Amino acid sequence: MRNLTEENLTDIVLERINSTDKRGQEVLTKLIKYLHAFVKDLEPTEEEWFTAIDFLTRTGKKCDDKRQEFILLSDVLGVSMLVDAINHRSKQEVTETTVTGPFHAPAMEMKMGDNIARGKEATSGEPALFRGKILDPDGKPIANAKIDVWQSNDEGFYDIQDDTQPEMNLRGIFTTDASGDFWFRSIKPSPYPVPTDGPVGEVLKASGRHPMRPAHIHFWIEAEGYQTLITHIFVEGDEYLDSDAVFGVKESLILDFPLNNNKEDAEKWGVKSPFSEVIYDFKLAKK
Amino acid sequence: MRNLTEENLTDIVLERINSTDKRGQEVLTKLIKYLHAFVKDLEPTEEEWFTAIDFLTRTGKKCDDKRQEFILLSDVLGVSMLVDAINHRSKQEVTETTVTGPFHAPAMEMKMGDNIARGKEATSGEPALFRGKILDPDGKPIANAKIDVWQSNDEGFYDIQDDTQPEMNLRGIFTTDASGDFWFRSIKPSPYPVPTDGPVGEVLKASGRHPMRPAHIHFWIEAEGYQTLITHIFVEGDEYLDSDAVFGVKESLILDFPLNNNKEDAEKWGVKSPFSEVIYDFKLAKK
Repeated sequence: MRNLTEENLTDIVLERINSTDKRGQEVLTKLIKYLHAFVKDLEPTEEEWFTAIDFLTRTGKKCDDKRQEFILLSDVLGVSMLVDAINHRSKQEVTETTVTGPFHAPAMEMKMGDNIARGKEATSGEPALFRGKILDPDGKPIANAKIDVWQSNDEGFYDIQDDTQPEMNLRGIFTTDASGDFWFRSIKPSPYPVPTDGPVGEVLKASGRHPMRPAHIHFWIEAEGYQTLITHIFVEGDEYLDSDAVFGVKESLILDFPLNNNKEDAEKWGVKSPFSEVIYDFKLAKK
Repeated sequence: MRNLTEENLTDIVLERINSTDKRGQEVLTKLIKYLHAFVKDLEPTEEEWFTAIDFLTRTGKKCDDKRQEFILLSDVLGVSMLVDAINHRSKQEVTETTVTGPFHAPAMEMKMGDNIARGKEATSGEPALFRGKILDPDGKPIANAKIDVWQSNDEGFYDIQDDTQPEMNLRGIFTTDASGDFWFRSIKPSPYPVPTDGPVGEVLKASGRHPMRPAHIHFWIEAEGYQTLITHIFVEGDEYLDSDAVFGVKESLILDFPLNNNKEDAEKWGVKSPFSEVIYDFKLAKK
């Protein structure tokens, strides 16, 4: 194994892989094949290669307990949605999935009807009521489903990006009873830019792309016996629905946020009038 | 740009690249093509994808001013040697190149003949004299060539890995005069493992590979009008010459380290007798 050349190097590196684990062997083999093919096709200068090393290093360093720059990188390169598509080929008629994104974080267990907007946005944001059911593919209610929701505030920031928000603001975990019903109060989501002050911002700039995501609220729904559903609800009419920076929009996940002016309804649900009333039934695939 | 699928996602991500820079456009296009092709071929589970995200994050976090885990990763995957091969296709008869590795660091300017071993290894290591010339492809001496050398100690650790060594130990920068001659004192290099306490160690372990590098000393030689030469001298007879963890060995860079028992020579060069005397002329390619 001396005098390796452009011609024989890839094969010799591949020959050295001797994993005891079949999937491990496959992952390492394909990683090296594609990585070497990329380098051979691109023919980076040494300076370009060090730029890549530095880019990856800075991306890692940008990560902390509140920020995940590598997920964001995967998102803006369309890789997260590709992984999502590959893992959700189910033919069951269920709610579609989309990216998790980098902003999921621990949240409090809440009671149905609670308001997840607990900061200044509880008054500055447009009030919204989210309600519906968690159903199986046949339309039967699922009890004990855990619904983890999170969204940005009316200025487009998640709590973990914004010291002025209370901790765990605009997040909450709700559990269904036998009816499968859920309902909670919040505000209408706003479009926002993904963070551009890190290495991912450089990629977007170099690509001539805007960083905006259309307004949405995240759902992560788990229930015993069902596939975990990670998805969004998008707001119909948003100007970025056709150019989402992370390629996450699906037609079936775009909902109207109609204004409800009925004062009795506002009183019934405990929201200010008028409010956006979003009604959606999530269907989870069977395992 | 809604309802993206496994089939159309890659093309749509590619269509969004609109760089003002031609090379930038090429880099981004090829990155996305190969990355998506890798993911489509591998079909990672979502758990595997998060494992990859976590691996990259930890690799970035392991880097600091004394450690570069991404260079090490590139090295053990054979990518650094591939980049090296692509960038040194010169047909000029000059010294061959090899990996820079992750252990280059600032060094002191020294006078010809100085001993770069300034710690306990100055006595525990086997004394070695390195001498020769810096030449152009026609064999003519190059004046004002800067020779940056670095090596590990007799236990296989570089100064930046080992708090017990003096700062900038076993490193030095020498400048040739009109004769092109260089000579300096040090110790005979030892084989050593690349660091395995970080994410790269996990890759080696998963690959069933040992982490050892054959004994070597690094050279980074720069001179006005010539291509920078980054290379090693390897020690003939080392047991890892045929299984270098970073694929860096080239036959032409392996030298005998013959013992010189001549007391007068030892006195002349200011080394303890007996000493390894390594004589090598480096030839730099013209720009």
